[in-house]
Amino acid sequence: MKNFILPIEKLIAEFSHLPGVGRKTATRYAYSIINKDMQGVQDFASALLEAKRLVKYCSVCGNFTDSDICEVCKKGDRKLVCVVAEPKDILAFEKVREYNGTYHVLHGLLSPMEGKTAEDIRIKELLARVSGDDVSEVIMATPPTVEGEATAIYISKLLKPLGVKVSRIAQGVSMGTELEYVDEVTLGKALNERREI
Amino acid sequence: MKNFILPIEKLIAEFSHLPGVGRKTATRYAYSIINKDMQGVQDFASALLEAKRLVKYCSVCGNFTDSDICEVCKKGDRKLVCVVAEPKDILAFEKVREYNGTYHVLHGLLSPMEGKTAEDIRIKELLARVSGDDVSEVIMATPPTVEGEATAIYISKLLKPLGVKVSRIAQGVSMGTELEYVDEVTLGKALNERREI
Repeated sequence: MKNFILPIEKLIAEFSHLPGVGRKTATRYAYSIINKDMQGVQDFASALLEAKRLVKYCSVCGNFTDSDICEVCKKGDRKLVCVVAEPKDILAFEKVREYNGTYHVLHGLLSPMEGKTAEDIRIKELLARVSGDDVSEVIMATPPTVEGEATAIYISKLLKPLGVKVSRIAQGVSMGTELEYVDEVTLGKALNERREI
Repeated sequence: MKNFILPIEKLIAEFSHLPGVGRKTATRYAYSIINKDMQGVQDFASALLEAKRLVKYCSVCGNFTDSDICEVCKKGDRKLVCVVAEPKDILAFEKVREYNGTYHVLHGLLSPMEGKTAEDIRIKELLARVSGDDVSEVIMATPPTVEGEATAIYISKLLKPLGVKVSRIAQGVSMGTELEYVDEVTLGKALNERREI
């Protein structure tokens, strides 16, 4: 079903490019835009352009920032570096509030399937940082997937000769999970990495 | 949790105004915008402004259009008018493909709770249309809610003196529904409006 209205179709197409948005949701968004006042739509359009224009990568960690060095790098303990795949992962860790170190954003993971090699993600920036700065520990916080595991192992092998402590976030059962629904790989990890209480 | 980055915060706020979008989804959308190329973001911003600038209401039915009269009014049978609450309802009816009449968009429903009276929705435009055009039937297709029912009854009382046939979309059980999950009001309507087979 087409709307037959070109400007709405174009807007629906743009909204459809957002992550997880299908045609039906995009149509709902587009219709809500038409019902906004002109000022509201102009504010939306400038917010888009401003965000793209002003936001860049932190020169230290690769996180999003609007200055040269991001807030986390300015305030955090640079001896402790948590390596993540994407800037959005930093948001998740910052919510924990127990972590006061800094981050390093790889902007991707090693993936032979997608042709992503060590050159395509920010590994050499991490090595330079560990060699240059006085880093005492690097925490590998790539996701617990095949690509995430492979990337963590690959990077840890490059880091160890530099004499830095390398750790991996723990894997096990999530808080509040019913054990009967936990997959066997996770449960196996939870058993292997059990600790005395 | 704040990102500490003003341009991203502003963009998240804008995305949060879209229907059904919370902070988490808005953040995901905003991050995806930063990862687009500049041209892509400019296209998005112009699509927003163009849609708002070019799309207006059809002078006949009140549907969205980029010309004076919408495509449905140009092609459809003007003797048959289906009255709906919002332009998005037209999309739903057009998918049926069995309907070849036109529409009339009220742009709202009567709602004493929200202070919406007959003056606030496009009722007098409908009356003018029925009096002027050669309309043979008006189908009340407002939603099956308290406001939708009240609006349908209110309008039908105004229309009947004009000598036009007024009908209401049928209410009953939806296709594929398990009867045990159908609410009692719907089931009552389905019983009352039963037809011989």
